[in-house]
Amino acid sequence: MTDSTVPNAAAPLAPHSIIGILGGGQLAKMLVQAAADLGFRSAIYSDDWGPALDVAGSHLIGPYDNLGRLDEFARGVDVVTYEFENVPVIAAEHLARRVPVRPGPMALRVAQDRAVEKSFIADLGIPVAPFVAITNTVELATAFQAMKAWQGPAILKTAQLGYDGKGQAGVATVGDLAAAFAELGSVPCVLERRIDFAFEISVLVVRGLDGSLACYDAPRNTHDGGILRRSVVPAGLSEAIEAQARDIACRIAVALDYVGVLGVEMFCIAGDAASPLLVNEIAPRVHNSGHWTMDACAICQFQNHIRAVAGWPLGSTQRHSDAEMRNLIGHDADDWRALAADADACLHLYGKREARSGRKMGHVTRLTPRSS
Amino acid sequence: MTDSTVPNAAAPLAPHSIIGILGGGQLAKMLVQAAADLGFRSAIYSDDWGPALDVAGSHLIGPYDNLGRLDEFARGVDVVTYEFENVPVIAAEHLARRVPVRPGPMALRVAQDRAVEKSFIADLGIPVAPFVAITNTVELATAFQAMKAWQGPAILKTAQLGYDGKGQAGVATVGDLAAAFAELGSVPCVLERRIDFAFEISVLVVRGLDGSLACYDAPRNTHDGGILRRSVVPAGLSEAIEAQARDIACRIAVALDYVGVLGVEMFCIAGDAASPLLVNEIAPRVHNSGHWTMDACAICQFQNHIRAVAGWPLGSTQRHSDAEMRNLIGHDADDWRALAADADACLHLYGKREARSGRKMGHVTRLTPRSS
Repeated sequence: MTDSTVPNAAAPLAPHSIIGILGGGQLAKMLVQAAADLGFRSAIYSDDWGPALDVAGSHLIGPYDNLGRLDEFARGVDVVTYEFENVPVIAAEHLARRVPVRPGPMALRVAQDRAVEKSFIADLGIPVAPFVAITNTVELATAFQAMKAWQGPAILKTAQLGYDGKGQAGVATVGDLAAAFAELGSVPCVLERRIDFAFEISVLVVRGLDGSLACYDAPRNTHDGGILRRSVVPAGLSEAIEAQARDIACRIAVALDYVGVLGVEMFCIAGDAASPLLVNEIAPRVHNSGHWTMDACAICQFQNHIRAVAGWPLGSTQRHSDAEMRNLIGHDADDWRALAADADACLHLYGKREARSGRKMGHVTRLTPRSS
Repeated sequence: MTDSTVPNAAAPLAPHSIIGILGGGQLAKMLVQAAADLGFRSAIYSDDWGPALDVAGSHLIGPYDNLGRLDEFARGVDVVTYEFENVPVIAAEHLARRVPVRPGPMALRVAQDRAVEKSFIADLGIPVAPFVAITNTVELATAFQAMKAWQGPAILKTAQLGYDGKGQAGVATVGDLAAAFAELGSVPCVLERRIDFAFEISVLVVRGLDGSLACYDAPRNTHDGGILRRSVVPAGLSEAIEAQARDIACRIAVALDYVGVLGVEMFCIAGDAASPLLVNEIAPRVHNSGHWTMDACAICQFQNHIRAVAGWPLGSTQRHSDAEMRNLIGHDADDWRALAADADACLHLYGKREARSGRKMGHVTRLTPRSS
């Protein structure tokens, strides 16, 4: 912001400071609103119009790899954070030389490549689904062997740029592998053993600049077509499993020297009491499965992310109500009259100008008195 | 917004519509944020910079009585509401010929003049403190007589433009009356008998465009120097008194043909079980004593105001937690480091650029599990 800005300075940002956010979608919008609740201003950098621009104090539109434009952005903000994990690492590193970037570029580097991500987590001694990285057709042979050993179906996922189920192909038998690799464009991939899990949960952990850690209660998540549809808290986990889930999320956050909210998606394996959790993937940002925290917690994931990146102490992650969050996807939100008429629903519409199939347009949270 | 806009059309506004707000302070800011939660955009009209401008999609700065500038504003919005009761009635009426204005100008006309307001409420058969309007020195004689009959101290209040205890003077004995009138500038005033009340409450009632009514639980309010310091829910009222308070607020809202959130301040008179409530004043807008609803209710006063002015069905006013809200006034907010370090406090900073004595800079709400 000014010449006196010291990159990575540990002092908390004063109210009126400007939070820079890369990305202009709904997560950025909710971050802007959380920042405003604490008296911060926000500036958006995005490559296109997005709903965050309706509430941000200022914005710049430009490609994420235009370093000159990013310099201009950096001069107008006191810290930079991001709403999506596909920010080019080079952009984050460039910005980090000018202004604190939180979470730091390492989290992006790990989360942007499934092979790196899975190795990183496995190296911490945390269970992940068995996998093989495939960067070229030669390595397909190794993958063949691995899949034979697994004796079951697998999923092939592009190593980079996958989200909401995109960039994935089911591989029922080893005979389907080469075709699936070609279908995904023969780009670097990860072949994962398909896990026969009972259900999926996620842990939203927030880590402060001072290393303090806090977790929200883990929701139980339901996907459809690769897109999150529903998150419910409490998830019905035993105390021991919930504690294990939190421990896993915290260990990943610490290993990444993370600052902010980190989403850790996990599979709960039925009948395997000794090791019932596998990490599916991480998201170095606020996470769709934490949207219920806006209505069911005193301090939501968005405010805690802002607190962390601003160098503030974390707020409580305590849940005051049980919650069920449902996403409004594609044309679900066209039904806003009926949604608005449901007096007990906490309705959130993102303000996107056009509903498209698979696009997250909003969400609805229903609260019930806290049961446990 | 377009030529097809029909003033006072009863159809609900679709998401992406633009809510026009007169005023740019913290109430407008919180209205903008609530509007954004429902996918609306906002435009501010104000006579100066204010914190709402940091989050509003657009704004116009101009005097509130500049009809040409207001026309320009009206062309860019789908409905107009306001955050303060001193919007010139002429401006509201001018706008109402172009675009729906909710609440309507009648609420402003009543709330802007204490004498009109008190007569309006008394005419509904609702108890108010005994009062006499004084518009000139000749009428002082009537006021003298009234005050003698009351046999106790009184308060002289300017009929217009008073807020946060400004424009008020205590009148201990009839002998002090003429001096107090002169002190307040010999402008039209209301002399009120000083009420020996046990405590003050307020009812936030919201009325939809379809006439539906809902009330939030009444908080017990504490003032200091005429400024609200603290609101606590529940207020500890008997069910009968709480029902009576709601009934009073609803009757006023109906009589005003009101749309939106209306704040009704009331005195609870100890030991007068037959008629334990007196209305002190009304505020035709969202109200400081309802800020706890942001953290303790699924749908807060700001969202319900937006729902009403947009012609949407009302949301639930149900409270999920007990709450204590404290205002941060003047330099209270300078202590933001300590406030931020209190993990259980829901901190709201308004983003005002300068702390001044008596200025509302933010508020803090503390939640506890619902007791009743």
